[in-house]
Amino acid sequence: MSTSRQASARAQVPPFEVMRILHRVAQLRAEGRSVISLCAGEPAGGAPGAVHRRAAQLHRAQAEFSYTPALGIEELREEIAAHYRLWYGLRVPTEAVAVTTGSSGGFLLAFLAAFNPGDRVALARPGYPAYRNLLTALGCEVVELDCGPEVGFQPTPTLLDDAVAASGELAGLVLASPANPTGTMIDVARMAALVEWSRRRGVQIVSDEIYHGITYGHGSPEASGDPERPKGVCALALEPDAIVVSSFSKYWGMTGWRVGWLILPERLRAPVDALAGNIALCPPAPAQAAAVAAFRRASYAEADTRVAELARVREIALAGARRLGWDPIAPADGAFYLYAGVPLGQYEDSEAWCAALLETHGVALVPGTDFDRVDGREFVRLSFAAGAEAVTEALERIEAFQAS
Amino acid sequence: MSTSRQASARAQVPPFEVMRILHRVAQLRAEGRSVISLCAGEPAGGAPGAVHRRAAQLHRAQAEFSYTPALGIEELREEIAAHYRLWYGLRVPTEAVAVTTGSSGGFLLAFLAAFNPGDRVALARPGYPAYRNLLTALGCEVVELDCGPEVGFQPTPTLLDDAVAASGELAGLVLASPANPTGTMIDVARMAALVEWSRRRGVQIVSDEIYHGITYGHGSPEASGDPERPKGVCALALEPDAIVVSSFSKYWGMTGWRVGWLILPERLRAPVDALAGNIALCPPAPAQAAAVAAFRRASYAEADTRVAELARVREIALAGARRLGWDPIAPADGAFYLYAGVPLGQYEDSEAWCAALLETHGVALVPGTDFDRVDGREFVRLSFAAGAEAVTEALERIEAFQAS
Repeated sequence: MSTSRQASARAQVPPFEVMRILHRVAQLRAEGRSVISLCAGEPAGGAPGAVHRRAAQLHRAQAEFSYTPALGIEELREEIAAHYRLWYGLRVPTEAVAVTTGSSGGFLLAFLAAFNPGDRVALARPGYPAYRNLLTALGCEVVELDCGPEVGFQPTPTLLDDAVAASGELAGLVLASPANPTGTMIDVARMAALVEWSRRRGVQIVSDEIYHGITYGHGSPEASGDPERPKGVCALALEPDAIVVSSFSKYWGMTGWRVGWLILPERLRAPVDALAGNIALCPPAPAQAAAVAAFRRASYAEADTRVAELARVREIALAGARRLGWDPIAPADGAFYLYAGVPLGQYEDSEAWCAALLETHGVALVPGTDFDRVDGREFVRLSFAAGAEAVTEALERIEAFQAS
Repeated sequence: MSTSRQASARAQVPPFEVMRILHRVAQLRAEGRSVISLCAGEPAGGAPGAVHRRAAQLHRAQAEFSYTPALGIEELREEIAAHYRLWYGLRVPTEAVAVTTGSSGGFLLAFLAAFNPGDRVALARPGYPAYRNLLTALGCEVVELDCGPEVGFQPTPTLLDDAVAASGELAGLVLASPANPTGTMIDVARMAALVEWSRRRGVQIVSDEIYHGITYGHGSPEASGDPERPKGVCALALEPDAIVVSSFSKYWGMTGWRVGWLILPERLRAPVDALAGNIALCPPAPAQAAAVAAFRRASYAEADTRVAELARVREIALAGARRLGWDPIAPADGAFYLYAGVPLGQYEDSEAWCAALLETHGVALVPGTDFDRVDGREFVRLSFAAGAEAVTEALERIEAFQAS
């Protein structure tokens, strides 16, 4: 009977823990409680002014915003290609750029185009849970690499060798630098080693570079245009065959706009075009048209000002975490997260610890179990994107909580 | 070796033929040729004024547009629920509404949540090619029902019985009314029969209602709020367990904005929420905020004015098609397409016929093979959304082409 139908097996993906926490934050605030939320993966402040102005102008003129080509409007693809010249000194042809519905839409297309059901794809644990859940929903087998503090929370050829020895060949390797939740980065030497390993085995690299540009000077300047503050190592500098995933969400603060992009090797362009037309039709047209203004000098300057402010908040957060006795603390060379071990005290794990912190002292963090189901139970992720004042006040509350 | 890697098997979906044609239209126009494009699945004119004004206002105020909840902002979900009361007299709870990234994003989530790999899902042939391609990419088996003119181009219980007898039980049935490319509608009696059949077999109905509201008075008024001009029969009126897919793209003319929605039975709400969070994070936030204004009285009035104009163009197109000897002509009770058999003359099929028409007389139609790989070779789809002037001029050119 129809009403006895169940949801599909692949619908059994875990929801983001962070969504549940944000819901609880909203409830507590509705009850009049003061809550500081250091949960969110988004910087405060929103899009650059020029992007908003362009959007306002187009809407005032009642622009028609029809379907765009599946891979995005030409003007935006050209600007994205030029961005690679500016930041990395790389020549990316316009045809290699696929504008996508956020980096989420990019991952979906990249995974569908590159991997078959049953393919084994490796990624770092701890890591962004949506990689795992999306690959699983698409029928791929996720191979988690145990990337603890001893390897800087990032994959190594040895870990990959071990994974192959333990359970067979890989089809893909997902890299993320700066990484969520740890903020650690893959430097040129490590990228070269991972590329070399993957080439030898015929493994497709998918490089998540959505936090590029939000870095704090501890990466490797040689592979980026700016010796002062490296943007991150672009996988394409070492492996033209890599798939790069990026987005307007983080550096430009345009999370809700849902515009991102892929840089694709030639053999995947026609397949991604066909898949995109069938799966998404096109990325949001008003957001595409406005995003062109993200590449103006003034927009880069606005974004860089925000990164400079994040660097200041990062120092406050790091100093606070040390004072609180958190250990280990991931390097946070980029992005806007502190991932650290916390003294659990009376609590069984960081999930219980975070729940108690939220209920008693009104600070929302994300427990490490959301990013690492094996070793995450003593870790938390603190997003310092909320700004200096929020982070300072939150650290005081956490100190009181830990002393209670 | 990495460079020898192939795209995945599921990337082997055919691209939309219409994309290739639009590309050729652009080329010819760039050469200075006068080309009338009756290809596109979108009405001219764009979004209602109130939607643009709201968007412009929010962008002028530099609204932050953070991530929204995965199922959309509360205000929009409430307005969508209220829309079902207004149009169909149906009580849809706000929790049943999932805002999606266009109806494309809705189909992706619905298919993932409801069907397992290997599940057999039936749909009408001719039909919208993306259903077929998306289901295939997700590992489902597509069962095409041969819905010719003798059954009004829509499924019947007999066709479903035959499909089951021929190759086994079904997990799902995709309905579309008004349908693309035929414009035919499922009336209350046929919907009741299809619901009854599906219930008996435990088959999940997915009802594509994106063309609702664009109808010409030939459907069944009893299941819609407006006895003058029925909006279409909402599957929920007869089957609360159906998944309904809809969108702002067609009736409100917001194709490029990428906002649509699902109405979900209770058992699928949590699974779709989890899948949406992992796959898409959220629908585009600026478009969601603006779309709230689509439910104002003035926006409905604007849309209805466009439908009245489409009704006028439809008469011109139908009269022209009869004059041209096209036969059969699908009823076009809704949507803005004429699907008809053309006299092939010297041409092998409608693909060759359409290519010659475009090259020699500058009119772009879509060959039926894009919608029906078996019986589409004598059919074309003419979109009359381009307006009276374009359609009149195109019909004259086609007359000259057929006489040549």
